[in-house]
Order: sequence, then C-alpha cells, then structure tokens
Amino acid sequence: MSIFKTVGKDMYSRAGVLKTPHGEIETPVFMPVGTQATVKSLTPDDLKTAGAQIILANTYHLYLRPGEKLIKKLGGLHEFMSWDKPILTDSGGFQVMSLGGSLVKITDDGVTFTSHLDGSKHKFTPEKSIQIQHDLGADIIMAFDEVAADKVGREYSEKALDRTHSWAERCVKEHKKLGGDQLLFGIVQGSVYEDLRKKGLEFISSLDFDGIALGGESIGFDNKATKEIIDWFADLMPEEKPHYAMGVGEVETIFICIEGGIDMFDCVSPTRRARNGSLYISPKNGGKVSNKFALDISNSQFKLDKKPIDPNCLCYTCQNFSRAYLRHLFFAKELLYHRLATIHNIYFMVNLVKEIRESILDKKFNSLKTSWLR
Amino acid sequence: MSIFKTVGKDMYSRAGVLKTPHGEIETPVFMPVGTQATVKSLTPDDLKTAGAQIILANTYHLYLRPGEKLIKKLGGLHEFMSWDKPILTDSGGFQVMSLGGSLVKITDDGVTFTSHLDGSKHKFTPEKSIQIQHDLGADIIMAFDEVAADKVGREYSEKALDRTHSWAERCVKEHKKLGGDQLLFGIVQGSVYEDLRKKGLEFISSLDFDGIALGGESIGFDNKATKEIIDWFADLMPEEKPHYAMGVGEVETIFICIEGGIDMFDCVSPTRRARNGSLYISPKNGGKVSNKFALDISNSQFKLDKKPIDPNCLCYTCQNFSRAYLRHLFFAKELLYHRLATIHNIYFMVNLVKEIRESILDKKFNSLKTSWLR
Repeated sequence: MSIFKTVGKDMYSRAGVLKTPHGEIETPVFMPVGTQATVKSLTPDDLKTAGAQIILANTYHLYLRPGEKLIKKLGGLHEFMSWDKPILTDSGGFQVMSLGGSLVKITDDGVTFTSHLDGSKHKFTPEKSIQIQHDLGADIIMAFDEVAADKVGREYSEKALDRTHSWAERCVKEHKKLGGDQLLFGIVQGSVYEDLRKKGLEFISSLDFDGIALGGESIGFDNKATKEIIDWFADLMPEEKPHYAMGVGEVETIFICIEGGIDMFDCVSPTRRARNGSLYISPKNGGKVSNKFALDISNSQFKLDKKPIDPNCLCYTCQNFSRAYLRHLFFAKELLYHRLATIHNIYFMVNLVKEIRESILDKKFNSLKTSWLR
Repeated sequence: MSIFKTVGKDMYSRAGVLKTPHGEIETPVFMPVGTQATVKSLTPDDLKTAGAQIILANTYHLYLRPGEKLIKKLGGLHEFMSWDKPILTDSGGFQVMSLGGSLVKITDDGVTFTSHLDGSKHKFTPEKSIQIQHDLGADIIMAFDEVAADKVGREYSEKALDRTHSWAERCVKEHKKLGGDQLLFGIVQGSVYEDLRKKGLEFISSLDFDGIALGGESIGFDNKATKEIIDWFADLMPEEKPHYAMGVGEVETIFICIEGGIDMFDCVSPTRRARNGSLYISPKNGGKVSNKFALDISNSQFKLDKKPIDPNCLCYTCQNFSRAYLRHLFFAKELLYHRLATIHNIYFMVNLVKEIRESILDKKFNSLKTSWLR
C-alpha cells in the first residue's frame, strides 16, 4: 500500500495525502520546527489551533539534551511532548556540521563533533543517527547526509555526494534492521552542479526510501539557486513519493517550490521572525515580496494602532490583540509577546500553504501565486 | 448600595462578594500580578481557565511604558490587554520608592524619582497617581502612600504615617473631582508599632474609601509580623468594607490572613516561583510548610518522572505534561516552560483560595487550615 497519494495536480504543483503512523497529512504542508521537543513558546493545543499537521524536531539537540534514551524510556517523543500528531526528525547531519564547533571531523565512517552545550566529544555515524531516530520515535526520519557548503567547489561537492550516497545505503540497511513503521526519507545533495544534483536524485530515488528530500546550503536560502534545482528536477522526481524541500519557509520560496512539485517544507523562519518583531501580513494588508510579507512591530507607526497584525487573519492573536499592545509587549520584553507573535506567524504560514493546496485542487495555482507575488 | 457583602463567616474569616464595574468577585480572592499589562507568559484566556477573577497591574511600570495616556487613547487597560474582568492598579508608591533609584526624594508634596528604564526624572504626587489610575481605568485603584522600611525606627514611621494620611485625603479629593465608577481603596501603614497601626486603621477607615488595604514592608514578607498586625486589627476593621493584604501570596501567609478577616491578596510569588523552577504541590503530594508547598523541578529525581507536577491538580499543565518534560524545558530554557509552570502555579494559588472560601461557607476553615499547615 502506497503511503502517498496525489489527489490533485495543476501543472507540476501537487495536492496529496501522506500516511504516517500518527495520521494522514494533507500536502503541500508547512512543518513548524520544534527543535528541543517544543515549538518555541507554543503548546500542542496552540499548534493544533493554528492548523499544524506535523512538526519537526532536531535529533542533534535531543540527543544532547535530554538524550534519546531518556525520551524512549518516557514513551517516545510524542508522549514526551504530549503531541499526538505526526513528527519528523532530521538526521542531525546539518547540525553536527554547523554547530559542532571547530573540531568537527568528517570521515567516511561518520562525523566527530563537540557538544555546543558542554564541549563534550561525540560521534554520529549513519547507523547511530538512525538508531537515535528510532529511539525518538518520530513518524518520518531522515537519512544522515553530508551538507557541504556551496563554496567548497566541485571536487569536494562530488566527494561529499559520494559519501552521502554510501551513508544513504547504510541508513536504509540500519533502518530495515531495526524494523518498525517509521518512514525513512533520503536526501539529495550535489550543491549547485546540475549533473551532480541529477546524479544525486537518481541514486536516492533508486534506494528504498519512502520520500525524497532536497538538501544543501542554498535550498531555501537562495531563491534563484533553489528555483534552478527545482526546475532541473521537475520531470525527474519520482511521482509516487512525497517531495520535501528542507529549510524552506519564506512566502516566495514556498510558491517556487510548490510550483516545481514540492510537497513538504520546514523552516524556523516563522518562529525566528516572530521573536525579532517581524510579523506576517497578506497582500491585502501591505504584504509583498520587497517587505518579505511582514511588518516590523517595533515601528513607531504602530504605537496607537488598534488594528490586529493582519486584519484578515483569523488566528487567536489577530482575533484578540492590537498591534499597539503587541508593540508594547515587544518593547517590554514580555514572554507573552513571543507566544502571540509565534501563534500568528505559524498560523499565517500553515494557512498560506493550505490556501495554496486549495488553489491546486481548483487548478488556480497560478492566479493565487500572481496575487501574492505580483 | 454597598459594594461588598459578606455571605459566610467562620470565626473572623469571611466569604464575600465584591461588586466592581467589570463584574463581581467572590472573596477571599487571590489576584495574579500583571505588572506590565500582562501576567507573565499568560493570555487572558489562560487566566480565565486558571480561574482568575481579577488581576493587578502596576501604575509605575505602565506610566513609564507605554504611558497611561497611550493606554487611555486605546480604550483603557481592559481593552488594551483584552481582559474584560476586573483589574486593580496599585498607586505606584511602593515602586517609585523601591525602583526609583538612589535619587528618590520624598517631600510632603510627593515623590521625585528616576525611571529604571532610561534614567529620566519624574514626580508622583497623590493627585498625579490618581490621575494616572483614572486614565488606566482599572476597577479598583489605590491611594498613594509612603511605604517606610521597618528599620527606619519609630520617629520616621510616625512621620511617614502622617504623610500617608495627608496624601490619603488628597487622593479621596482628587478621585471625587475626577468622578467615574472606579473603587478607591485606602492603605493602612504604621510599620511594626501597634499604636501607629491602630491610628492608621482608624484614620483610613474614617475617610471615604471603598476598601481598606494593609501595606508596609513586613506584610506578606514576615509571617510573624503579618500575623501580629492582623491580630491587632481583627476586631477593628470595618465589617462592611473589603480588606486587602498587599503582597501576600504564600500558602501559610494566606491562611494567616484569611483567618484574621482578610478578603483579598496579590503577590508575584506564583509567577516568580514558576520562573525559578519552584512548582506548587499540595499536602497530598508532599507539600508542607518546610518546603513552602513546592518542588524544585531542577531536581534530578524528576528526570524520568512521568507524573504531573501535582497528581491531584486539574490545571492544563498537570492534565497534559510530565515533570520529566517540564524539567527538560526548564534546563533547555524554553519559553514554553514559563507558560506551563505559570499556568500551574496560578491555578494552584487561585484554587487554594477558592477551596478556603468553600471551607468558610461550610464553617470548616480550621480543619482545612490544619490539613495544610499541620
């Protein structure tokens, strides 16, 4: 039985349903990030009210604190954080390389790194990453890959790609050995090189993965490069599997990705922006590409503004609080600010993607895209 | 028409109903503190779910930021923070003297002080405090008083008491001049001296105040001194007015105060304790005077503890999350920790006082007190 079903198409964009052990997910879907087994400042109820269907947690962080063995003893990640809907964990690969300090060492066997918490030394291998993710118990787990920076050049990119492929095979093997009903996704690397990317896609598609993810430094961070890669892949990605663009969470990038056939996204952007006072607004209320669809709540123009962040938004924050009050909480450094701002930004992003899904089912993706990005 | 009605008595302890412009309050009542127009980390909905009937906000803080004029323009404190139940504001007297820096100067006219935010110079007089509180628009406002430290000795205490009385008269006059339906409470000072306290109570009772508050350094901070003052007053406080002990919020002190006829309390203790990892537990679950009815969530014994903070508690936090998860959030410095911990501590305190109210109506105050303080 297939875990993924396409229920609607509009050119390359797809509306689908993804089956996981903790329920079905309607795609395209935005996945809020809950790094340390909590989406910053929100309860599981807040997330459900905002419409979140699945959240992401970070293997690197949970391995270091509180430890995957402890979470396993407490019944797994779902029970630990009291979230009964789907969860995806990343492999820890990106984090060990970016947070692992100057002593990170990558060999064909795995990666040694130091903890950003206490400087202690650790080693992740593909097998170890899969073991940790089995202990955590997320619905979707990710293969351990090497994310090379784009600036390292072609030669190293090729080497990192080969290593990612050998690690992918080891991940599949370890996952089969451990058993269970978790879904395992493979990750396509290959940096900015078309032939490497295509080689990566072909190889990852050939293995027994439940889904295909696009990784790499530029995905989500550089719209031009992201679009280029997505375009190369549009006719090549396996139809019957879900497609996941890692680290994508800005309005424009989401449209670019969905247009190219991507089904899943995750990004810290809505939560991080919320913290910094950047609150999403729709085109009707001044949101556009040039302001990244957000207002800056610290702006003095909102001092006496009784309107909600986005007057068309139905989130709890917009239904109850004014820009003036949020601005006050922001400057007073009040904890409530974070929660109200995060509720809005998560709701906004989750519901934008839901609106896009509707537009695909109605074959109106392009007109929706134009109304946002014009 | 009287704003306060006693509906039950058990010795000196009273169960009553206090009428305010934003609804009736059942007393005894615990009032959570929302210093900057927010009870730290909680929404109005969280507060209602926890059973809060009235909250307190701080005039000093709101005057400095965002400013009472701005709040007035936005429709007053209730609309500003989206809280439609009663609010009490303090006079700012305690804060200007404790936070006003080393340049605080008290004269018979008022108090000059510097802002803890930007060092700017300000002056509060009794009239100014009442004007600000009228702009903020709380249901209950407080007279501007001088809170002298206990260590200043009898001579200065007497001087501060006289000043408090002259200021009380000016507050009543200004309040009448401004009109409206806010209730104004007077504050009894007099430090640790029985004759000064009694003189204070007699004077404040003689003025046209809607309620009588007990102020001073030791109230709430020193159980022995608090009990002594309450005992002096038990037969002297005007029956027909509500009695408010300022800054009281620990379990033992609450029992002491209610036993002596106090109807209202406020304290930052539940919110501050929550921040520091101190979470209330009832006697059934190990709470007692010696541990201040709290566990320390940072304790390693809770590492793998699947139980809620207090297994008999019906708050949202205890219904959904384990001590182990809260401990993880605490150490990970996650924003969600604050919210979940605060929800529990506020619920616990609000509901303890509700339970005490029931015991008064049932004439069982003493046995409830014994079951907690034995």
